[in-house]
Amino acid sequence: MNKQQNILIIGGGLCGSLLALRLGQRGYRVSVYEMRPDIRQVNTDSGRSINLALSDRGKKAMKLVGIEEQIKAFCVPMTGRILHDVSGKTMFSAYSGRENEFINSISRGQLNALLIDEAEKHKYVSFYFNKKCLSVDFEKTTALFKDYDTKKEFIEDADVIIATDGAGSALRKSYFTARKFLFSYSQDYLTHGYKELSIPADKNGGYQIDKNALHIWGREDFMLIALPNLDGSFTVTLFLSYDEGDYNFNNLTTKERVLEFFDKYFKDALEIMPNLAEEFFKNPTSPLGTIRCSPWHYKGNTLLMGDAAHAIVPFYGQGMNASLEDIVEFDQVLDNHQGDWETVFKTYEASRRKDTNAIADLAIDNFHEMKGHVNSDIFRQKRALEMALEKHFPLKYASKYSLVTFNEDVGYREAMIRGRAQDKAILNMIADGDLDLKADLESILKKVLKATEAVLEDDKIAGFN
Amino acid sequence: MNKQQNILIIGGGLCGSLLALRLGQRGYRVSVYEMRPDIRQVNTDSGRSINLALSDRGKKAMKLVGIEEQIKAFCVPMTGRILHDVSGKTMFSAYSGRENEFINSISRGQLNALLIDEAEKHKYVSFYFNKKCLSVDFEKTTALFKDYDTKKEFIEDADVIIATDGAGSALRKSYFTARKFLFSYSQDYLTHGYKELSIPADKNGGYQIDKNALHIWGREDFMLIALPNLDGSFTVTLFLSYDEGDYNFNNLTTKERVLEFFDKYFKDALEIMPNLAEEFFKNPTSPLGTIRCSPWHYKGNTLLMGDAAHAIVPFYGQGMNASLEDIVEFDQVLDNHQGDWETVFKTYEASRRKDTNAIADLAIDNFHEMKGHVNSDIFRQKRALEMALEKHFPLKYASKYSLVTFNEDVGYREAMIRGRAQDKAILNMIADGDLDLKADLESILKKVLKATEAVLEDDKIAGFN
Repeated sequence: MNKQQNILIIGGGLCGSLLALRLGQRGYRVSVYEMRPDIRQVNTDSGRSINLALSDRGKKAMKLVGIEEQIKAFCVPMTGRILHDVSGKTMFSAYSGRENEFINSISRGQLNALLIDEAEKHKYVSFYFNKKCLSVDFEKTTALFKDYDTKKEFIEDADVIIATDGAGSALRKSYFTARKFLFSYSQDYLTHGYKELSIPADKNGGYQIDKNALHIWGREDFMLIALPNLDGSFTVTLFLSYDEGDYNFNNLTTKERVLEFFDKYFKDALEIMPNLAEEFFKNPTSPLGTIRCSPWHYKGNTLLMGDAAHAIVPFYGQGMNASLEDIVEFDQVLDNHQGDWETVFKTYEASRRKDTNAIADLAIDNFHEMKGHVNSDIFRQKRALEMALEKHFPLKYASKYSLVTFNEDVGYREAMIRGRAQDKAILNMIADGDLDLKADLESILKKVLKATEAVLEDDKIAGFN
Repeated sequence: MNKQQNILIIGGGLCGSLLALRLGQRGYRVSVYEMRPDIRQVNTDSGRSINLALSDRGKKAMKLVGIEEQIKAFCVPMTGRILHDVSGKTMFSAYSGRENEFINSISRGQLNALLIDEAEKHKYVSFYFNKKCLSVDFEKTTALFKDYDTKKEFIEDADVIIATDGAGSALRKSYFTARKFLFSYSQDYLTHGYKELSIPADKNGGYQIDKNALHIWGREDFMLIALPNLDGSFTVTLFLSYDEGDYNFNNLTTKERVLEFFDKYFKDALEIMPNLAEEFFKNPTSPLGTIRCSPWHYKGNTLLMGDAAHAIVPFYGQGMNASLEDIVEFDQVLDNHQGDWETVFKTYEASRRKDTNAIADLAIDNFHEMKGHVNSDIFRQKRALEMALEKHFPLKYASKYSLVTFNEDVGYREAMIRGRAQDKAILNMIADGDLDLKADLESILKKVLKATEAVLEDDKIAGFN
């Protein structure tokens, strides 16, 4: 095969720069066109999350390209959730019963800069910034760009185009509007939007609340969360309906109303958010959408990857991880079919889409769980039981959360099916009084595993999975 | 309220003409713009199904406007499916254990013509043909049309615009492309397309196969069906993959291949399809898509109804029925909120969408059931048992099919949830040997109802419904 083919990557974010790095390691000739300025030379990160949750699927991708040690310096480990109730009382809920399982708050900008640095070390990998893709001619394998510096438009020809240009992908729009083949597509918005806010470091540069947790103020109809940054601050995100309820984005139009809202529902957070009112009106309100489509590729010419193919809502902390895992899966397909792009793309989509569909569903489920269920009695009992099972039987039990987050060798779909069956089995046994939570854990584990198998078998017979 | 407002209906198909008729009965001033010629003056029905299955939800709508007796003359009752196996053997499978429950093959053209005739009897209802809607300005409540006769474009102003212009709706496209609000939208295609063919009447004008059934040749990977027409012919539809399998639409390119395919899989049908090869290459191959979106309305200005809001695949025979039922539901909302269009539209969507989403899911499920499951042992046993239960306990048991098709006062969503739970309960009891199918039916009914409740309760506790 001829690795001197030109591969054009649209979008140099996390997914695109990791892809460029990996293809560079494989010896390909790669050009990456990114619409934003070089993140290594500017400090703005406007409109995008400043930090993200990195977990084991993302780490596996870091390992693939050999930077798993380097990124540790950018990470703040989060071992569980700290739930803040209305009165300001907090409760810690671990992510896993196993000691070594935690997620990491990582700076998007730092990670992206590292990936670009590493990719550029490869002779045949080049990045071009301030170049926005306007459309792709997938039959000719050419892309139309606008150069933000010169203000001119230009066309790039390539042997293969891979679009990692996020939820607003230009290639995906070209698939949709060209109507040259049947293109299944969905964009699905929640009734809620989000806005980023912050808790600054204290005057000594220290953290004002526990740094090793993801903080959640769940209020059934809306929710506030906070993830730690390396500098002592937290990035805070408010999830709120656009137009439902007494307080919503459409009617929080004055400083007084915003402060009243936070005072009523997030009093302990408000006390450490001195810039709330200013940030609230300065920062944009953004929608929460899920995007799915198929096919991802056109023949062997073009392919969608990352958010461009499957954008999800952020509630499972898996958006970045899913996009990074795309590269791991793609790399495995390359091992088997390198040299035949159409087979590579087809094989990749055939195995990958079931998993990205599953994490999309799980992320929406978790929105409802985070807002409300974490506060319900039966869910709390389940959670406590699962932590005990994971702690005492680290190799024999993994909760749905652990399957999704810490079991990078189990696909999302398998994690979803098994995890949901476990949840259903445990919740029903607790509700029916069939589980003596004081009994020995060994016998409880046996009952849980048996009931889970029964749930899976019942669904299988009914043709549900 | 002022009924002298101008209501503009885009699309004079079944849904639009029924809506015009009902609004006319309510005294509204209504203009209907239809892109096709007046169906009462032309005989072509190109590209559209010639007959459709009318069942109890559709009949309820006919009753609402008082034409339930008139339409009987257009109907051929179908009391069940006749399954044709590869060897030509047939098996009858009733749609219900109750005598009075059957579906009807009805001519789309005749029904549409009657609805237009009835609507036009109202002084303030007018139809305009050969006027294609190009786009809608939903903020100004105006629609842009092209007049196919004069070739000129013109704009119509209205107080309210309701689009019943089908799966390719101009209003829905305007919602999508304007990007003035968050518009959730999905178009989802099956890998299969369809093509209409025919079985002509015999030389005496009689039916060549049983007229009172829907005929199915299910072959796992593809399927042929036939519905009777009043003139002794059958409209036949082939459902086949575009590009998978040994035989598919993309590779059936010669007369010889088509005849070979039918000879191999549909021999008994081929014998009575003298025009097969000609029709196969003359008639279009069309895609099978599901369309969902939200919101359906913009303020009190514009509303999507029928296929424009929720197009589904044809496998439950509910596409037309769902669109006609839209009018019944809309009419009930008008009873409560007439005079306030925004509240009418909002209330209508809030109650209706869960049901149209459910029938969309059920229709896709049924595709797989019709192709294959109807031939599986455990599904056949379930079906036989359900027929016996319906026959002996007509008031106490209704299968999923009956709930969907014959229980017009049960919403689609409720029918889906209860129907799936029943299926799961019965299939599992049969698979596990928990049902003695020779036992007295009374005790079997009790077991089935109890197991169904248990399935529903388990799902509820797990938060699944």
